[in-house]
Amino acid sequence: MKAQVARGMRDFLPADVRKRNYVVNIIREVYESYGYEPIETPAIENLETLLGKYGEEGNQLIFKILKRGEKLRQALGDAENENALADLALRYDLTVPLARVVANYKDKLPKFFKRYQIQPVWRADRPARGRFREFYQCDLDAIGSTSPIVEVEIFSVICDVLERLGFDDFTIRLNHRKLLKELLDACGIVESLQMEALTAIDKLDKIGIEGVKKEFQERGIQKEPSERILSFFDDLQGRENETILQEVEKFIGQKTQSIENLETLLRLAENPRLKLDVSLARGLTYYTGAIMELAVKDLSGSLGGGGRYDCLIGMFGKEQIPACGFSLGLERILVVMEERNLFPEKLQAPLVDVMVTVWDERSITESLKIADFLRREGFKVLVYPEVDKLNKQLKYASQIGVPYVCILGESEIAEGKVSLKNMVNGSQEKLDRNELKSKILR
Amino acid sequence: MKAQVARGMRDFLPADVRKRNYVVNIIREVYESYGYEPIETPAIENLETLLGKYGEEGNQLIFKILKRGEKLRQALGDAENENALADLALRYDLTVPLARVVANYKDKLPKFFKRYQIQPVWRADRPARGRFREFYQCDLDAIGSTSPIVEVEIFSVICDVLERLGFDDFTIRLNHRKLLKELLDACGIVESLQMEALTAIDKLDKIGIEGVKKEFQERGIQKEPSERILSFFDDLQGRENETILQEVEKFIGQKTQSIENLETLLRLAENPRLKLDVSLARGLTYYTGAIMELAVKDLSGSLGGGGRYDCLIGMFGKEQIPACGFSLGLERILVVMEERNLFPEKLQAPLVDVMVTVWDERSITESLKIADFLRREGFKVLVYPEVDKLNKQLKYASQIGVPYVCILGESEIAEGKVSLKNMVNGSQEKLDRNELKSKILR
Repeated sequence: MKAQVARGMRDFLPADVRKRNYVVNIIREVYESYGYEPIETPAIENLETLLGKYGEEGNQLIFKILKRGEKLRQALGDAENENALADLALRYDLTVPLARVVANYKDKLPKFFKRYQIQPVWRADRPARGRFREFYQCDLDAIGSTSPIVEVEIFSVICDVLERLGFDDFTIRLNHRKLLKELLDACGIVESLQMEALTAIDKLDKIGIEGVKKEFQERGIQKEPSERILSFFDDLQGRENETILQEVEKFIGQKTQSIENLETLLRLAENPRLKLDVSLARGLTYYTGAIMELAVKDLSGSLGGGGRYDCLIGMFGKEQIPACGFSLGLERILVVMEERNLFPEKLQAPLVDVMVTVWDERSITESLKIADFLRREGFKVLVYPEVDKLNKQLKYASQIGVPYVCILGESEIAEGKVSLKNMVNGSQEKLDRNELKSKILR
Repeated sequence: MKAQVARGMRDFLPADVRKRNYVVNIIREVYESYGYEPIETPAIENLETLLGKYGEEGNQLIFKILKRGEKLRQALGDAENENALADLALRYDLTVPLARVVANYKDKLPKFFKRYQIQPVWRADRPARGRFREFYQCDLDAIGSTSPIVEVEIFSVICDVLERLGFDDFTIRLNHRKLLKELLDACGIVESLQMEALTAIDKLDKIGIEGVKKEFQERGIQKEPSERILSFFDDLQGRENETILQEVEKFIGQKTQSIENLETLLRLAENPRLKLDVSLARGLTYYTGAIMELAVKDLSGSLGGGGRYDCLIGMFGKEQIPACGFSLGLERILVVMEERNLFPEKLQAPLVDVMVTVWDERSITESLKIADFLRREGFKVLVYPEVDKLNKQLKYASQIGVPYVCILGESEIAEGKVSLKNMVNGSQEKLDRNELKSKILR
């Protein structure tokens, strides 16, 4: 029997989990400090809940769950239709489940609902360096308000998280989905080709202006509007936010609501991390207002992204409810933190404060009692699990990195004492039980 | 588009998640206090990793993931074999993945590896009251030692968790898989029928002695040995642990290693929660030594179970490595705690300490700044997300249960002050920013 993990999946050993939890706990603390509340949704959703939400490519990447029993036997009669074989699927992101929850539990939720959700999602993508088929998203969303306060708070949450994790060079790229449409209109790109244009523009970071120009051509967008929009993007590179807004207004020929919205967001936020980028497209189709993406210099691609989506929740219920959110990508944050050595050193050692040795069969109870005593004093205590030579027990403690060892040998047991060995400097002293706590704390 | 959660699945709203996290955090703290370290494994495993580990019924309950693309098209040619359609499946428990991890990463793990794992598992069971298709298990396992210290520590962990959660009436039922076999041998139940007998005995709790007798008959076990074993179980009901061991020794005709092992466990543990029950069978096939189950009076079925399994890890690697573990069932613990009202009252309110009001468009920045200031002081702060009438804002704060509201109205802004309203007693005072912290803490 092979012991491999499935393709694109990962096992996390204790040192990995400690790092992951360190980051997740900071994200959770910051989210909660803004009044976001936790929800959780199941890994398995009805297939129809997910289909059609993530674009054609997204549909292909959904992990579908095979029907079982009689339903499967029936479906096998209709096996040419592969959707007939599955009726459930794995969560693909955290936004669609949120929209489903809000539509479903509307009466149980407050008028303004700020929720966060930190859970894994699954995509049947081709695994590659840094791309996994199971990965955590850390989402926060504010439901029920169209006020710019929502976006401004989200900028602030992102900055707090990144700063607490030790990042000092990030920017939040900001754009507006409607502004992008207005720019395409102004260039004369017809409505029916605008989705195509956005898909190409979304790749600007990766393939550059020449690459996008080529994609435009392949997607049937005419040469003149292509060149107009791309040279406009080029002109704006490196400009100040204020200048960009002025140029955009000139380009479109009027101050539209989307320009006003961006102006308001920049003014209220007073946040130097915000960087207008009118070429930012964001892949997903459901955005309706401001869109943003978190970028650091040494990572192509983003550490997270989000935006306003005022029309998604209505897909699941009778009522259209405005919403805006952001998703931090845990896996990418971890990769960059690893490269930059941003983890506290203490995460390298296990969570244990003290190991208690075991002398012989008869003294096992004594060892267990000392361990119990230390646990009640608040320490994390490991008991060596077997009767063994003392030097083997000490060697083990040193290997796994325990800072203190309580030795209960023949003489200690006879005298009713405990020897405490400091594994860092090698010193050892015989103590009364009651002296242990203060010595270990020191 | 329907907004329902998939069948047998659950959404957890903030109040649910708070309760779940409260319990999970206590379990995690206790596990860590014994030196167990966290690991995590992916939700998706290779199908062959899971097949054949959980018995025939278990095989049926595995959620299989449909193949995709070319592989699916190929498989549809072979559609009579339903296993050909799936190559991945959802995690079914946490023990098989652990065995896989230990076999796979043997060189990276310490000789004695104590791990805990708190993650969801999925079973395609028929949903019923209290039975879900996605549920959390909280597992701890100690790998690498056959010493009774391992079992004794596990008893102790379970008691610490349950006591910290507020349970005072639980027992740990204890038996030994080999002892059970020795009892069946002693009654003359032939080897080939012993698995059948165990499956029937496993139901003793639910269907009673008469029910098991009937099942024995249906499974082809002869009348005389059936009556012998069942009347022996009956005789032992309510007896002391010591008496039971004596009676068992008499029944078998010698003191076997399994009896000695149980004796040692009871002696080392000195734990009044332990209750020998030689009819305890535990469904799973992989146990090889002590088996245990956590019981409370008002719940048929158990809150958790476990045992020693010295031969499972070898299924995945070259080496046979001893192991012993226990799994707490989070969902059942939550159900009983809910019935007994064991959750602290504070879990009923959201996680927010203060809400800040918003007076008008121009004062938004002031409100955001006060919120930011309070957050830096360590409070969880919500900003009302829109410009709105003050009484509507206060009503909202009262509805969601925020204890304090910071009011930034026209006069406060003019004077550079803040009004702090205590939402519990209704009192309100105008304060300097710097006075806020001490007033809220009080």
